[in-house]
Amino acid sequence: MSAAPAYSYLGPAGTFTEAALKQVPEAAGKVWHPVNNVGEALDDVVTGRSVAAMIAIENSVEGGVSATQDALANIPGLRIIGEFLVTVNFVLVARPGTTLADVKVVNAHPVAYAQTHLWLDAQLPTHGHIPAASNVAAAASLLLDKTADAAIAPPGITDHHDLVVLASDIGDNPNAQTRFVLVSRTVAVPEKTGSDKTSIIAELPDDRAGGLLDMLEQFATRGVNMSLLESRPIGDAMGRYRFVIDLDGHILDERVADALLGLKRFSPNVIFLGSYPRADKLEIEVTQRYGDEVFIEARDWLRGLISGEH
Amino acid sequence: MSAAPAYSYLGPAGTFTEAALKQVPEAAGKVWHPVNNVGEALDDVVTGRSVAAMIAIENSVEGGVSATQDALANIPGLRIIGEFLVTVNFVLVARPGTTLADVKVVNAHPVAYAQTHLWLDAQLPTHGHIPAASNVAAAASLLLDKTADAAIAPPGITDHHDLVVLASDIGDNPNAQTRFVLVSRTVAVPEKTGSDKTSIIAELPDDRAGGLLDMLEQFATRGVNMSLLESRPIGDAMGRYRFVIDLDGHILDERVADALLGLKRFSPNVIFLGSYPRADKLEIEVTQRYGDEVFIEARDWLRGLISGEH
Amino acid sequence: MSAAPAYSYLGPAGTFTEAALKQVPEAAGKVWHPVNNVGEALDDVVTGRSVAAMIAIENSVEGGVSATQDALANIPGLRIIGEFLVTVNFVLVARPGTTLADVKVVNAHPVAYAQTHLWLDAQLPTHGHIPAASNVAAAASLLLDKTADAAIAPPGITDHHDLVVLASDIGDNPNAQTRFVLVSRTVAVPEKTGSDKTSIIAELPDDRAGGLLDMLEQFATRGVNMSLLESRPIGDAMGRYRFVIDLDGHILDERVADALLGLKRFSPNVIFLGSYPRADKLEIEVTQRYGDEVFIEARDWLRGLISGEH
Amino acid sequence: MSAAPAYSYLGPAGTFTEAALKQVPEAAGKVWHPVNNVGEALDDVVTGRSVAAMIAIENSVEGGVSATQDALANIPGLRIIGEFLVTVNFVLVARPGTTLADVKVVNAHPVAYAQTHLWLDAQLPTHGHIPAASNVAAAASLLLDKTADAAIAPPGITDHHDLVVLASDIGDNPNAQTRFVLVSRTVAVPEKTGSDKTSIIAELPDDRAGGLLDMLEQFATRGVNMSLLESRPIGDAMGRYRFVIDLDGHILDERVADALLGLKRFSPNVIFLGSYPRADKLEIEVTQRYGDEVFIEARDWLRGLISGEH
Repeated sequence: MSAAPAYSYLGPAGTFTEAALKQVPEAAGKVWHPVNNVGEALDDVVTGRSVAAMIAIENSVEGGVSATQDALANIPGLRIIGEFLVTVNFVLVARPGTTLADVKVVNAHPVAYAQTHLWLDAQLPTHGHIPAASNVAAAASLLLDKTADAAIAPPGITDHHDLVVLASDIGDNPNAQTRFVLVSRTVAVPEKTGSDKTSIIAELPDDRAGGLLDMLEQFATRGVNMSLLESRPIGDAMGRYRFVIDLDGHILDERVADALLGLKRFSPNVIFLGSYPRADKLEIEVTQRYGDEVFIEARDWLRGLISGEH
Repeated sequence: MSAAPAYSYLGPAGTFTEAALKQVPEAAGKVWHPVNNVGEALDDVVTGRSVAAMIAIENSVEGGVSATQDALANIPGLRIIGEFLVTVNFVLVARPGTTLADVKVVNAHPVAYAQTHLWLDAQLPTHGHIPAASNVAAAASLLLDKTADAAIAPPGITDHHDLVVLASDIGDNPNAQTRFVLVSRTVAVPEKTGSDKTSIIAELPDDRAGGLLDMLEQFATRGVNMSLLESRPIGDAMGRYRFVIDLDGHILDERVADALLGLKRFSPNVIFLGSYPRADKLEIEVTQRYGDEVFIEARDWLRGLISGEH
Repeated sequence: MSAAPAYSYLGPAGTFTEAALKQVPEAAGKVWHPVNNVGEALDDVVTGRSVAAMIAIENSVEGGVSATQDALANIPGLRIIGEFLVTVNFVLVARPGTTLADVKVVNAHPVAYAQTHLWLDAQLPTHGHIPAASNVAAAASLLLDKTADAAIAPPGITDHHDLVVLASDIGDNPNAQTRFVLVSRTVAVPEKTGSDKTSIIAELPDDRAGGLLDMLEQFATRGVNMSLLESRPIGDAMGRYRFVIDLDGHILDERVADALLGLKRFSPNVIFLGSYPRADKLEIEVTQRYGDEVFIEARDWLRGLISGEH
Repeated sequence: MSAAPAYSYLGPAGTFTEAALKQVPEAAGKVWHPVNNVGEALDDVVTGRSVAAMIAIENSVEGGVSATQDALANIPGLRIIGEFLVTVNFVLVARPGTTLADVKVVNAHPVAYAQTHLWLDAQLPTHGHIPAASNVAAAASLLLDKTADAAIAPPGITDHHDLVVLASDIGDNPNAQTRFVLVSRTVAVPEKTGSDKTSIIAELPDDRAGGLLDMLEQFATRGVNMSLLESRPIGDAMGRYRFVIDLDGHILDERVADALLGLKRFSPNVIFLGSYPRADKLEIEVTQRYGDEVFIEARDWLRGLISGEH
């Protein structure tokens, strides 16, 4: 393990992932290690090359990032320790001297291309598309050869490359955001902040119909709200799924702990990804019925029943 | 409290309640205190005049005994410590010298009368009915005055009174049984036997629709079977009920304890009446999913998540 | 069937059941037929001796009237056509010349006795009790012999018998009410009034755990509120129950009809007792989601999907 | 609309989508129209240029095809009329004369690359990756320039291009399959076959907690099994989802129709995508309780109750 703690992220400099990592106070002044994909980022964490990795987990337009969800399901020993939101917007960049009228071929990462296609269809109806491995790679390619005339890139790209902006704010959805998580090796859970989220991945038992309904009851009967439910194929056969779930609250909240116990008893495989402060800073409102003190009082009552005190 | 422990029961000698008390080994050779109603029996227990009282709680034909259910809901400090079944059958008795053809008027407790009315309608179609306060009182009345010609009584009545049996087995349902419970003051729960029952009374919260459904979910999500559910009016207004519930299993079974915790958090008023050996000796089968070890493993797992061990 | 339509009720004149029948406009000026019990009353309806019978079905203090619930479950061809509430109060009556200090023995119907026992314990702590077959019979007995010194009776009893009131308002619960239903032979359901109730009796399927929960889901998923749920033993063995259920709304309400369809598919035995105007005149509030038009629109939508219109 | 009916598919010739289209008997001998993406394919259907389009909807390893799911949610007037499974396998191809040892850079569609990465890591640990727009385009690129040395392509690629196979069966999961659907304009639903599937997309109401649970109850209470549940962001804000659902059975099955009615009443937006024969030919087993005749009998019963027949 390196003396100076490092942080891995999808590079190079200028990506949205880098923008997410800039939101982490502890990462300031540390070594930042750009990687090419989520597998490499998590491998850095598992092997100790980095103390943590920033990875994209969900986009408000495109949905869950499958590669991240599947990696978290399959690689043991990881823990989510933070969540960060980055507003996703795009610019069209080109080599100096190029005008919008000159653009015939556009280099773009497929996700960025999907999120700007309305603008492209309207402004450049006859353009061709060359896919890139990342948003920054799309821009960088313009300086390597002349196959493409322009590229779709994050707004800060001109800080890193000698390119000019032909058009700004070309994302089709001005509210688009990407949600990132900071992942470390397994550590003790942090303290509650009152604005926390708990992430898990769970499989359903094979041997009963209505399994999903029964799983969701585990949360509902404890007043635990679910803010995300995504199914992912387990991959061994068509029709077998695991579920990626985000819960409002922290594992040290009594109602969340009790729901996790219920889930663990029910599911053949539960992966706890972590309890961590929410990026949206939303205070979790809990009705009095599901407050910690209600759980504690019930346990005291049960103890008294058994001992015969009351 | 008396030096010699006493047992109270609905008397006089010869009642079905006495037959239930004869099934209690600890009561053999002790003082037996006959009382007139369930209130008196429970008052003996509360004041310490008796160590326990035997009271009828359900009849297989007539249903729950409302007076018992309501008394258990309203009198604090009681605990059911045993359950006993008595097969209910009836004889028609009369003063010596009477024949069936002589019978014009029958003295009978209303519950006994209800359970023999098919036989009476067939054999004595024009009879009149005088209600009695208990089955034994019905028989005893024949020796006090001549208002009635015959009485419906428990089979052993001729051991206690100078009467003759005109007809036996006159109950309309040959399988009729009455379920009795032995009630003491609040004590520590007994050990599990593997064939146990847990009795509770619970009210629903006022402030939510579907409350009964939510209450039943507390049992279903823990694999706890409910063998009795009866509603009783709380009594303050039409439409307000409490529920008398029997669960398969013992409060020291993890799944039952967890269900009771869930119920306590949910209900504004839960009365635990006791966990005690079943009269029917039925072994409670629990699927592996709801076994004690599953609950213990889940708690160990949760602890490890919080500490960061795994 | 008699030329003049008759109405049966638990007599004699002066009972609470008669007070309920006085609330029925159609019964005014018709023959009123007093009977001794609910079986006789319903037999009058089945045979056509009466067009309808008034019978007590629930008391706010004592709960459901088992005999009525069981009779409605077992006698086919009946339909509840109306519901009536009577405030239940009691007076203590005696032969002229008797004072409260003279009262040693009280004649009373067991239900009336149960509802006045606090008053009796306070005012006549050493009294004896003789049970009667009805509230009016208790009073009438005072004029037949001198076994009892006083009787518990309905307030209007002195209109019918030469007795004096020793004490009024002696019921322990001033809000006590009894709910009566008017029962006819099976007829077409009446029109909706917006303030209706639907009564059913249903058995659970034997072959599945959690049957009660599943049955209640049939109502919950259609937004149908349940105002009464009582279990009654089927009577063939301990532990087998049927459920007496009252639903808010009318069988001609789409959501109620749909819930009944669901229940019929689920239950091995459903008895529809009727949809009828409520005694409490409460308007049933239905959220927009469960309104009739939502059901009709959904059916139109389904038809269009199948035909390919949309 | 063209005189000869055309079928659109993700081209060019040689793709897995073409393999799916070859399974459609009606398409034999018709015009096949290769397109570049699912939007173009569905646009051909909407405008009438094609009678149907074959599009990929799910991969057993990679999960749901987001672009397809989102297009079906957003483009009105479409109907799925068939389902087809294609086993997904890959070959590594190169220009004639190339050996495996020569391969430094691999051109591959990102999904194909994800499904072969274990093989690539083992056999070509130091390779570089250039992304392509489709599996066939990856192969075709080898003949346009020499940027890449090899390409990942479907097994039949050498029928269309002058390339050689360096390695076969290089997919990491030998059971990988892709599920395709054939989509036409809205038409009447086809007849039941006994082995059918029904696809829908539904949004949850905003105004209630536990909405997903309530939605799933609509299926569970009718015995309708759900073989797929995927969430997709609606796209307007983080945390708002719609659900893509496959049900076992046909809209003309009574239980499915009834569940759809329940869903329509519940959900602010339900899109019916179609009922169609299953690719896996699995006979749908229905317990007697949920059979068509049970629904029909219940309706007859309800009619009789209302009319007073019984």
